[in-house]
Amino acid sequence: MLLKRWLVGDPLKTAQAADERLSKTLALAIFSSNAISSVAYATEEILLVLILAGTAAIAWSIPVSFAILFLVVVLTISYRQIIYEYPEGGGAYIVARDNLGELPALIAAAALMIDYVLTVAVSVAAGIAALTSAVPSLFEHREALGLVASLFIVVMNLRGVRESGKFFAVPTYFAIGALGVMVVIGSAKALFGPGTPIPPDNQVAIEEMTLFLVLRAFAAGCSAVTGMEVISNGVKAFRRPESKNAATTMIHMSVILAVLFLGISFMADHYGVLPKTDETIISQLARLTFGTGAVYYALQIGTMLLLILAANSAYAGFPHLSSILARDSYMPRQMATFGDRLVFSNGIFILGFFACFLLILFHGDTHALIPLYAVGVFISFTFSQAGMVRRWLTKKGPHWRKKLIVNGVGAVTTGIATIIIASTKFTHGAWIVFLLIVILVWMFRSIHSHYKAVSEQIALTRDHRPPLPRRNIVIIPISGVNQAVIRAVDYARSRGGEIRAVLVDVDSESTARLQIQWAQWGCGVQLMVLPCPYRSVLRSLLDHIEELLEKNQDYWVTVVIPEILPARWWQNILHNQRALLLKASLLFKDRVILTDVPFHLKR
Amino acid sequence: MLLKRWLVGDPLKTAQAADERLSKTLALAIFSSNAISSVAYATEEILLVLILAGTAAIAWSIPVSFAILFLVVVLTISYRQIIYEYPEGGGAYIVARDNLGELPALIAAAALMIDYVLTVAVSVAAGIAALTSAVPSLFEHREALGLVASLFIVVMNLRGVRESGKFFAVPTYFAIGALGVMVVIGSAKALFGPGTPIPPDNQVAIEEMTLFLVLRAFAAGCSAVTGMEVISNGVKAFRRPESKNAATTMIHMSVILAVLFLGISFMADHYGVLPKTDETIISQLARLTFGTGAVYYALQIGTMLLLILAANSAYAGFPHLSSILARDSYMPRQMATFGDRLVFSNGIFILGFFACFLLILFHGDTHALIPLYAVGVFISFTFSQAGMVRRWLTKKGPHWRKKLIVNGVGAVTTGIATIIIASTKFTHGAWIVFLLIVILVWMFRSIHSHYKAVSEQIALTRDHRPPLPRRNIVIIPISGVNQAVIRAVDYARSRGGEIRAVLVDVDSESTARLQIQWAQWGCGVQLMVLPCPYRSVLRSLLDHIEELLEKNQDYWVTVVIPEILPARWWQNILHNQRALLLKASLLFKDRVILTDVPFHLKR
Repeated sequence: MLLKRWLVGDPLKTAQAADERLSKTLALAIFSSNAISSVAYATEEILLVLILAGTAAIAWSIPVSFAILFLVVVLTISYRQIIYEYPEGGGAYIVARDNLGELPALIAAAALMIDYVLTVAVSVAAGIAALTSAVPSLFEHREALGLVASLFIVVMNLRGVRESGKFFAVPTYFAIGALGVMVVIGSAKALFGPGTPIPPDNQVAIEEMTLFLVLRAFAAGCSAVTGMEVISNGVKAFRRPESKNAATTMIHMSVILAVLFLGISFMADHYGVLPKTDETIISQLARLTFGTGAVYYALQIGTMLLLILAANSAYAGFPHLSSILARDSYMPRQMATFGDRLVFSNGIFILGFFACFLLILFHGDTHALIPLYAVGVFISFTFSQAGMVRRWLTKKGPHWRKKLIVNGVGAVTTGIATIIIASTKFTHGAWIVFLLIVILVWMFRSIHSHYKAVSEQIALTRDHRPPLPRRNIVIIPISGVNQAVIRAVDYARSRGGEIRAVLVDVDSESTARLQIQWAQWGCGVQLMVLPCPYRSVLRSLLDHIEELLEKNQDYWVTVVIPEILPARWWQNILHNQRALLLKASLLFKDRVILTDVPFHLKR
Repeated sequence: MLLKRWLVGDPLKTAQAADERLSKTLALAIFSSNAISSVAYATEEILLVLILAGTAAIAWSIPVSFAILFLVVVLTISYRQIIYEYPEGGGAYIVARDNLGELPALIAAAALMIDYVLTVAVSVAAGIAALTSAVPSLFEHREALGLVASLFIVVMNLRGVRESGKFFAVPTYFAIGALGVMVVIGSAKALFGPGTPIPPDNQVAIEEMTLFLVLRAFAAGCSAVTGMEVISNGVKAFRRPESKNAATTMIHMSVILAVLFLGISFMADHYGVLPKTDETIISQLARLTFGTGAVYYALQIGTMLLLILAANSAYAGFPHLSSILARDSYMPRQMATFGDRLVFSNGIFILGFFACFLLILFHGDTHALIPLYAVGVFISFTFSQAGMVRRWLTKKGPHWRKKLIVNGVGAVTTGIATIIIASTKFTHGAWIVFLLIVILVWMFRSIHSHYKAVSEQIALTRDHRPPLPRRNIVIIPISGVNQAVIRAVDYARSRGGEIRAVLVDVDSESTARLQIQWAQWGCGVQLMVLPCPYRSVLRSLLDHIEELLEKNQDYWVTVVIPEILPARWWQNILHNQRALLLKASLLFKDRVILTDVPFHLKR
């Protein structure tokens, strides 16, 4: 408990919840890092696909990058509409639920949940890649480093959302700044300076240059726009006026993302930088721009922290989405409850668990994770935009035609992108995502129908009447007279009911001795001796209880069990085995209620 | 449950226990099979050691066999004295406990327990070897076959001791008969017939012929006498007069054992039969004597069944020893209780588990198990005999000098044998047995001292007085009004105490609604609303309970928890998480007693 307090801080009162709102500056750090950090790997993933067709194909990275820029613009404009329309937070699940119905909403939710997990895994892996590019000796430990980073993020998040933000804001802004400086200097050198383009290695083409390969490169690059939806989910976390602040932050984010992404793609193309196993494109560009000095190292560390904050942002989104689903009874109820620090601890644990699982499964390798990535996010993008289209068509309202066109363009664009991503990545791993979506949707629906069945079963209807008072027979099974037994008798007597101790007559001699002891210690409670024809104490007790239930059709039967609680866990095997069997046998008997009266041993 | 009944039969009344006594004929099958069946592998194990010094060394098997015959004679005579002196059953543990004290008794008990497990494993492995010698295609499945046989024996034993005996008696006598016929015919052919000794393969000597090797061969052959103590443990299971019947059965057993063992050793030597990986010596001798026909197959099947019955005999001994130890508080108490079928089910399960473990660990290979075998049995032999020596010295009685000499010879002989076995086998695996003995003895003593500490802690002494009546505050934490809650209220009301429902005010709107519902459904029970400053229902409840305990220093506090019990196990994750946390938090609070009132869901 002390450790927990130290790690996650003191619990906060509800009144403090209002203060947990984020300024635009903090919100940009927390919510935008997910999208912006993608620049650390998006260009590299495009190049990794194109290189399959040889170094000449690299030139295609520029048109692909512009296609992705177009996506950024479309998404920014259409998501701003969502932000204004859903000031309470308009995640894909909510938009789809309100406008498209249950199934699309659940598909969007499942897709998003999967992508939250992937965001953590990909971002952490890429963050560690930034580190190992600078310090190659750590390369072989990247899996372990990824796990450590993940656990660190979990602990930070359990400390609460504002503190996590504060912790990361400074290095994040530093990283954005450093990347910006690199892009400006690097581009300027490229455009105006003498330029020292590296002669490109003549990589052998493995595949032919086809349209399909370009589309695959586009699909890989789409990882750049993942995370753009994060702000729209978290509008409520902004200070008042929430929507306006969120929309402004959205613009800031998109501009930063666009500038960095295009700049890096341009530089990579201009300098002919090719992907390497153990060094990222960013690291190579930074070395070219700044040389391998203090600035280079600072930029790598900054990039790493930016990526880790991106992973961190999923820890705001995932538990939030879980809690919304839990409130709608699609997830276990306990996911909906606030934890100690006003954050959704359960969701944090689950996200952390699965992200670590993926990191271990894919050995902390960004490129291995990418084929699974972005599919889910684009599915949710499409459902969001389609939901908004449907909304304008039914709700109308001021300027609805203009808004319809904006979201319509958004829906069509993201829809096409989704099809491209799904079809080019399907055999490379995206099928897993589709399978998981089906499983998750099935799970959501099972949980929902279970909760529905439960509330029907426990509902009080007009046919019910408040119950009439009933009598209660209390039995205390004993096999000796000792402090534990007397404690149970003392407890049973302190409440009402018809109390009797019952003793199974295994051995007539000890039964007689016990009856004498009972006269002294039994607190006036009647002692009943049961015959034991089958040498089974349990059977005799069960027969007796069965008989009581049959004779007294309307009574409750309470079984008070004197239980010895040992001081050490292993000692449990030496005690209460009979009580355990008794409890297991009585669990499904209606009208029988068990009460353990523990007697705590000291040693 | 139906499956259990079908497998293990109906429970028996105590009155039937007297009938469970064994006739001499049945007792010989059950108790002697352990010792007699050893002939199936003892000769082979002697040869396996001697062959290391080349084929010429095989001749040493005859003197070694005679040394073992001497052991048989000594053990028979000295164990007959134990049988008469301990008609209640004189296992090594009891004899050592009565005469030598706690530590020797526990060492003997530990040694015996280990050897019971090894008896099962070795006998099953040898039984399967008898089968695979006849049907070589099964050789590669010997591990799986061994496990099947072990499980079969466990089930048979759960059906009760007499039925297990009946099941095996006929094939056992058949096997003894068939082995007898083989020995007689084979020896006659060897002595009087023309004889067709196989020219021995000129096996290359790996080791030199040394005294140590002869002693190792003797140690390996000592496996022949394991199981000779079984009768003395089980005197009580014989019909009246128990001791006389048991002593007579002991003689029968020893004669059969001696004749078969010597005969097989003689034949093996005469025909120059050498051990093979996939065929036993017995199988080779049987082929030579009868040819590979119906008689041969019958003899192999008979040998297998004899060995399986030997394994079975450990299932009588082990649970019996466990129950004696449990009654002396050296083993968990539940080991002492009769199971459904008047047998010690717990012991049977444990023995079966460890035997299967050994079979898997040693891949069902007899030879791999042998180095661990016999050590334990000889330690217990020695302690038994030494105990008897001490007994005659202190107790004296008629003919005590004669008896002293008999057991004295027994003690010295078995002592020397123990030293030989331990020293020659120590590095081959016997060290494991010594280590296990130390661990088991430590375990016995820990359990004993724990039970002692418990009985001291719960004992009622002169300083105790029967407790004065105390009051009881009953609280029912609720978060809604439904059938499960009303059921809990109905139950609480059926007993006395000061009852109140408590509601944590998480949301003032729903609290107000609930208070109105309570007026209708609350059965007149007071509803108390607790503030919720930390957004934690659990914390509010705990604070309230803490307050109650403090204000009412002498009261009990009962927490009645309405619990929803789902129809399927996986649904548990969707319910009662809060109740679980509450229970965990209250478990170690003195004066707080929890009562679950389950509401069973149908779907």
